Amino acid sequence: MDLCEQRASEAPKLPKILQNIDQVRLEGQKSTTCISHQEEIEKQFPTLFGAPILKGSTGDSIERKPLKVGVVLSGGQAAGGHNVIAGLFDSLPKGSKLFGFLGGPGGIVDGHYKELTSQFIASYRNQGGFDMIGSGRTKIESEEQLKKSKETIESLKLEALVVIGGDDSNTNAAVLAEYLGSQVNVVGVPKTIDGDLQNPYVQISFGFDTATKTYSEMIGNIARDAISAKKYYHFVKLMGRSASHIALECALRTQPNYTFISEEIEHSGKALSELIKELAEMIEKRAREGKNYGVVLIPEGLIEFIPELKSLILELNRGELSKEGEKVLHALPSAIQEQLQMDRDPHGNVQVSHIQTEKLILELVKKELTIENFSPVEHFFGYEGRCGLPSHFDANYCYALGSCAGVILSHGKTGYMACVTDIHQPIEKWGVAALPITSLLCVEERKGKMKPVIQKALVDLNGAPFKSFSSKRESWKYADDYRFPGPIQFYGPDLITESIPLIVK
Amino acid sequence: MDLCEQRASEAPKLPKILQNIDQVRLEGQKSTTCISHQEEIEKQFPTLFGAPILKGSTGDSIERKPLKVGVVLSGGQAAGGHNVIAGLFDSLPKGSKLFGFLGGPGGIVDGHYKELTSQFIASYRNQGGFDMIGSGRTKIESEEQLKKSKETIESLKLEALVVIGGDDSNTNAAVLAEYLGSQVNVVGVPKTIDGDLQNPYVQISFGFDTATKTYSEMIGNIARDAISAKKYYHFVKLMGRSASHIALECALRTQPNYTFISEEIEHSGKALSELIKELAEMIEKRAREGKNYGVVLIPEGLIEFIPELKSLILELNRGELSKEGEKVLHALPSAIQEQLQMDRDPHGNVQVSHIQTEKLILELVKKELTIENFSPVEHFFGYEGRCGLPSHFDANYCYALGSCAGVILSHGKTGYMACVTDIHQPIEKWGVAALPITSLLCVEERKGKMKPVIQKALVDLNGAPFKSFSSKRESWKYADDYRFPGPIQFYGPDLITESIPLIVK
Repeated sequence: MDLCEQRASEAPKLPKILQNIDQVRLEGQKSTTCISHQEEIEKQFPTLFGAPILKGSTGDSIERKPLKVGVVLSGGQAAGGHNVIAGLFDSLPKGSKLFGFLGGPGGIVDGHYKELTSQFIASYRNQGGFDMIGSGRTKIESEEQLKKSKETIESLKLEALVVIGGDDSNTNAAVLAEYLGSQVNVVGVPKTIDGDLQNPYVQISFGFDTATKTYSEMIGNIARDAISAKKYYHFVKLMGRSASHIALECALRTQPNYTFISEEIEHSGKALSELIKELAEMIEKRAREGKNYGVVLIPEGLIEFIPELKSLILELNRGELSKEGEKVLHALPSAIQEQLQMDRDPHGNVQVSHIQTEKLILELVKKELTIENFSPVEHFFGYEGRCGLPSHFDANYCYALGSCAGVILSHGKTGYMACVTDIHQPIEKWGVAALPITSLLCVEERKGKMKPVIQKALVDLNGAPFKSFSSKRESWKYADDYRFPGPIQFYGPDLITESIPLIVK
Repeated sequence: MDLCEQRASEAPKLPKILQNIDQVRLEGQKSTTCISHQEEIEKQFPTLFGAPILKGSTGDSIERKPLKVGVVLSGGQAAGGHNVIAGLFDSLPKGSKLFGFLGGPGGIVDGHYKELTSQFIASYRNQGGFDMIGSGRTKIESEEQLKKSKETIESLKLEALVVIGGDDSNTNAAVLAEYLGSQVNVVGVPKTIDGDLQNPYVQISFGFDTATKTYSEMIGNIARDAISAKKYYHFVKLMGRSASHIALECALRTQPNYTFISEEIEHSGKALSELIKELAEMIEKRAREGKNYGVVLIPEGLIEFIPELKSLILELNRGELSKEGEKVLHALPSAIQEQLQMDRDPHGNVQVSHIQTEKLILELVKKELTIENFSPVEHFFGYEGRCGLPSHFDANYCYALGSCAGVILSHGKTGYMACVTDIHQPIEKWGVAALPITSLLCVEERKGKMKPVIQKALVDLNGAPFKSFSSKRESWKYADDYRFPGPIQFYGPDLITESIPLIVK
């Protein structure tokens, strides 16, 4: 028996409130609004708008009728997706049927699905990946897509749909809920390793814990290599667009010499040259102490937060380069210039995720250095962390999220996001809630159109996690106070196996 | 308490024979020769040559006198090095002293050392890395280096020295043993994540298990991402020069679609173009089955085993390019051409380890493909695996190797390699042996000079591990029969925590 099989045979822990699904009540009266643009949001979601936040409590058993439910995974992989489906499946009343749409939301549009049976689900319990039914990035937006989706749902006689995805997918869930009306209830489940889907009811999205623990294992190993070999500077780029939550969490776990936090850089308005100078100073000072090695963490989205690079990218996307833009461009290493100019997406936009930010930083810093011994090594950790075997936290959290979605559907609610609350408490004390997706919406320009969106939660520079980081980082620069978290453990002392993300508090 | 601290507090398991160190006997009569060039080896090692292989058994207790011992870590990091030192420390008779030379063999030459106390060693028990005393790549070869080393050893009044290292470091241990004579006993311990130090008494070198399990965790995660996202081809280069043991072990653990085994390619004499064609055919066929994703493993040393690239590198090192060589060079992607021509070591040689073989392969295959959807992603896994928290196997194996070295020293033997045998058996049945390093030697040209060396053990194309791989790989090409080993576990079922490398049998 290998680790995957062993884990598949184990039952996730359930919060007390979810141990008797028939007894869960969801209650709330106070109507909600939204983050901004109330008029527009209300116009676009006339039925859903204003729904109250519902909180879970335990009451007398209620009778629940069997349901026909569809479920879909949307967007990038995150550890625990399979457990959301397992939790949903197990929470549905006897006689229910669950259909998985294949390859993401496109499977709803095109009518590709599979009935999910107990036997089929069994081998995916507690497993990483989204391979049970696949995922995809189709957004159901156009009138035709909506119509075809409705046809698929009607042909299957579905009474409900669960959308497991990130900020955009949850927004899309609200769009679908509004479109499908009272016939079909739609519930969203908050997923993304980026950690940028956060609010008072979503302390962290699922997948973040496993991804950051996997990256931290590797960063720790690399840090240990650095102080053993004493000759390499490791520049580690970490997956996660926009927000730097992943870099912050990994920094707190491994205590590297230097970590870029995009939000702080944007806030400070520092120029790229200043950032490079600061890093070069650290490297020079370490060299004077005989330390020609180190570890530097770089969030994937960094360059969009550095003012002059942000402008440059905007100019390149528009196809007009100002004098200032030209100057910025030509100061970059040639490989990066090439990537910025040549590598465009189908809309002609710069593909920011293709830019080798780790190379950019180390090439620029190299030019700045006066020392001789500088051997940089580049790393990018991304795919390695999205599909790992879910940590206990992600496995339990996801299973509870799936159960919570099942509860919301049994209560006949639609347009809600399934939330598991109080996750900083021991599992038995976790709570459940249903959050109106519309209450999270504002309006932003996307591809030239004004669209309802859930605002990405960025690193809060006044929050405890960032403050803890910023109070220690100066000493980390020189003290080599690395931590080596090691691989995720599934057995052994609770202190090790049951830990939750450090940025959750 | 975190995982590192928890592991530091735990005692490794010891084989039965090492549980009472005072009772271990080492016996053997039959004199040995060497692999080849007997006359030269005998001339260079007049004292050591011909020593018998000694095997451990249990007898009556013998009295052992306290020893003053030096220990040094040599070459690249490998998980478990700290436990070799801990095992050695614990095995020395009461009243002994242990000194660690700092920063590798250079620490012996320059007299940089540190006394290793029980308290100091405590926090390094079962930990990864070589940071307890550092490591380095200095070879003690010149008359001056030898003389200075002797002075250091004499000034410390050392009676013995333990050299923990790979093939070259163990050869160097024999050179030192011969030079230092009967005053100082020198013992080698076989280390290298590459797995290329193998013989009947060394079934695998330490560090291989942790490195390959760490790489396999990540390859498994990536494979799971591949079948979930269904849109990326992952090209994974794996650390390990020359031999492909790491790639073979990882292939057996994760069952990727395609794995290059350098030794097989050299044996077949296949041209690069043939290899690329074969890979391209697989990718095209998978595409026809709707599979535009996959996982390809590439051993770091590959290009030195592809006949025309091997010749090209030789020509570039000599500085004379033939017409054929020029043709081969110009058929390569421009970035690789540049690396081959520009990136030289201080001797003017091509730095093979700097060549982005994974990029080379994917760029060439891209040119060959007629399909549209091909999104390759490059990875290099190396540093991530050298300093991980040692697996149970590496932790126990290393601790036993250290104890074995202590036993050999207590028996007043020199020029021996410490061996722990029968590692395919349960730990209690593991044996110990002392192998004359001279018996492993042959002579090879190194940097223009004929030198005694331990031949690197390459993948045996007639061995069971390769045969098991080659019998299954055709089906792995198309069946997506990936395995996801997950992270190394230190607690839980024995079947999971106590596994040993698959190539050991």
